[in-house]
Amino acid sequence: MKKQIAILGSTGSIGTQALQVIDEHPDLFEAYCLTANNRVKELAEQARRYNPAAVVIANEDKYEELKSLLADLPDIKVYAGKQAIDEIVEAGPIDMVLTAMVGFAGLNPTIHAIKAHKGICLANKETLVVAGELICELAQKYHAPIIPVDSEHSAIFQSLAGEGDNEIEKILLTASGGPFRNFTKEQLATVTKADALKHPTWSMGAKITIDSATMMNKGFEVIEAKWLFGVPADKIQVLIHPQSIVHSAVQFADGAVKAQLGVPDMRLPIQYALTYPDRIHLNEDRLDLFKQPLEFFEPDLDKFRCLALAFEAIKKGGNMPCIVNAANEIVNRGFLEDKCGFTQMSDIIEKTMSRVSFSSAPDYDTYVSTDAEARRVATELLGAH
Amino acid sequence: MKKQIAILGSTGSIGTQALQVIDEHPDLFEAYCLTANNRVKELAEQARRYNPAAVVIANEDKYEELKSLLADLPDIKVYAGKQAIDEIVEAGPIDMVLTAMVGFAGLNPTIHAIKAHKGICLANKETLVVAGELICELAQKYHAPIIPVDSEHSAIFQSLAGEGDNEIEKILLTASGGPFRNFTKEQLATVTKADALKHPTWSMGAKITIDSATMMNKGFEVIEAKWLFGVPADKIQVLIHPQSIVHSAVQFADGAVKAQLGVPDMRLPIQYALTYPDRIHLNEDRLDLFKQPLEFFEPDLDKFRCLALAFEAIKKGGNMPCIVNAANEIVNRGFLEDKCGFTQMSDIIEKTMSRVSFSSAPDYDTYVSTDAEARRVATELLGAH
Repeated sequence: MKKQIAILGSTGSIGTQALQVIDEHPDLFEAYCLTANNRVKELAEQARRYNPAAVVIANEDKYEELKSLLADLPDIKVYAGKQAIDEIVEAGPIDMVLTAMVGFAGLNPTIHAIKAHKGICLANKETLVVAGELICELAQKYHAPIIPVDSEHSAIFQSLAGEGDNEIEKILLTASGGPFRNFTKEQLATVTKADALKHPTWSMGAKITIDSATMMNKGFEVIEAKWLFGVPADKIQVLIHPQSIVHSAVQFADGAVKAQLGVPDMRLPIQYALTYPDRIHLNEDRLDLFKQPLEFFEPDLDKFRCLALAFEAIKKGGNMPCIVNAANEIVNRGFLEDKCGFTQMSDIIEKTMSRVSFSSAPDYDTYVSTDAEARRVATELLGAH
Repeated sequence: MKKQIAILGSTGSIGTQALQVIDEHPDLFEAYCLTANNRVKELAEQARRYNPAAVVIANEDKYEELKSLLADLPDIKVYAGKQAIDEIVEAGPIDMVLTAMVGFAGLNPTIHAIKAHKGICLANKETLVVAGELICELAQKYHAPIIPVDSEHSAIFQSLAGEGDNEIEKILLTASGGPFRNFTKEQLATVTKADALKHPTWSMGAKITIDSATMMNKGFEVIEAKWLFGVPADKIQVLIHPQSIVHSAVQFADGAVKAQLGVPDMRLPIQYALTYPDRIHLNEDRLDLFKQPLEFFEPDLDKFRCLALAFEAIKKGGNMPCIVNAANEIVNRGFLEDKCGFTQMSDIIEKTMSRVSFSSAPDYDTYVSTDAEARRVATELLGAH
């Protein structure tokens, strides 16, 4: 029996790499459903190639274009709108849902998939950043496994295999440090979009590449790890590891540290999430430990303010991570659109954190209203700047 | 229920550290039986402290001395002789047998323990070096789990937890490289016993410290890994890793590498073998990855001939590893007794390998006769030198 896979965000970096994995193992996997936000041509090409049962374009304005691009393929059902994504995820004969869309938009379909008892391959970290508590409660209630796809969380998940209830003493979350690792604060203030888009070790989408440069991405990963592995933030240590070889590690009560290492290739955690607990061959470069020493440094929270803000948000809890996430989505886009400088991103996020209504015990509706309010506040601050 | 532990070789380095572990967790473990080869005073002291049901001194000449040292403790049964060790291991209400004696002497009691369905915590690597095939067959037949205690094999074992039948693509076996890692061949020829006994990262018994300096220890570990994990020698890669932090690693079919890291402290693998699959707190230093970069180098087989000879022995199979082990025990002691130089050890082993009768399918008796013949040949070569 082939596993039926829904890829939410199939035209993005994770989505296209997931399709490469499916391509390599047509005997094991079938793309049941592909969705994209806006990129209608790429989605139509993918549909032509992978012949899914259904495709969904989130932007409803693009429905007619998609429909006409696939007019000669009547077997592929074409839908549009966010609600259609939720519905197909819930109703389709899908084994695994890969949530690879960007940002807050990942939350709702993930909830729908969990409620329909689908296995979740979680690549949309904002889902846990925004609403980790809610998602984890639901996953437990509906017995829906959540398998992380982020390379760091996959590494932690792999290191935990076979460890049962053994206590986690510490999570060692590695970070490349991004392109500005050795920059001074003054240098950081003048970096350009082009500089920030050059990630030293990973090839990723634009949003996450900027988040890596500010280290907000690592802050989000701390929050994600907290929820995925049930570990408080003070037991999660961020280590700058410029070689991106040790993808992360876990320290247990006996002092043993287990780590997963490899070349930086997202197909590995994607494939592992789809095959877990089994492993199958992956046609990638193998790790060569003779090539370079592995180095680890403490992160500079004074320089990388976004990481410090993320830790503050976890400490505060409630809807604070949701506020940070929303503000970050605004400033990230703002930076990419040349509306603010590099270091102003953390300034705006910090101000947004202090201005949006705090809720210590948010429900789903609170998250939605918090997200809207934080976006509004951050957008105002971005414009005022 | 406390686990009843037999420690074979309780006065050695592994044995005393195992007793420290038992000391820290009197609620979990009880020393049922302690055995030593010659060190009667230390054994009596241990018996006084840990109150085992029985003690055995392998050297029968020391029986009276041990008996009189423990005369005031009539509850502790006192035995002597190798056969007594075999018998008590087989008949006692023992859960785990820690085989921590040195050399070929570990083989017979291990076989007895396996046949009595005891769990084996294997610290005597010579058992697998000499008779890996036999031991593994017996362990399977009698459903006796073998849990490795060597830090490298424990690391591999830990990395394999939760991996089920996932294919091992490669084992990455790390080695500190010993005190002579950067020596030239010429320098190696003149090193002294005192130099060789200074291991850079691990504190161990004299025999294994010398074996580490020649890298024969690593060769034995390759053989041990082959049998423990069912992996051919050409899939076992030795990596010089001077920091001794990555204790070893496994590469799977998807290219993922899982490793176990930690400070060099043998109590960790000893304790893990006793608590597996659980982990309990261990009062040791924690790993600090900020302290030093982790480096990996290819071993120089031309300089460290013993490692090359071990690989040759595995390739040849049959009783060849047994020959190498016996010859190595002789030259190791010879070197410690100033009867030969450092590089002459590998010369004598190599000559012994070519002179002792080869058997491609040895049984237990063949191992015993091979061991005796190889010792005789190596001793002659040592004397002739």
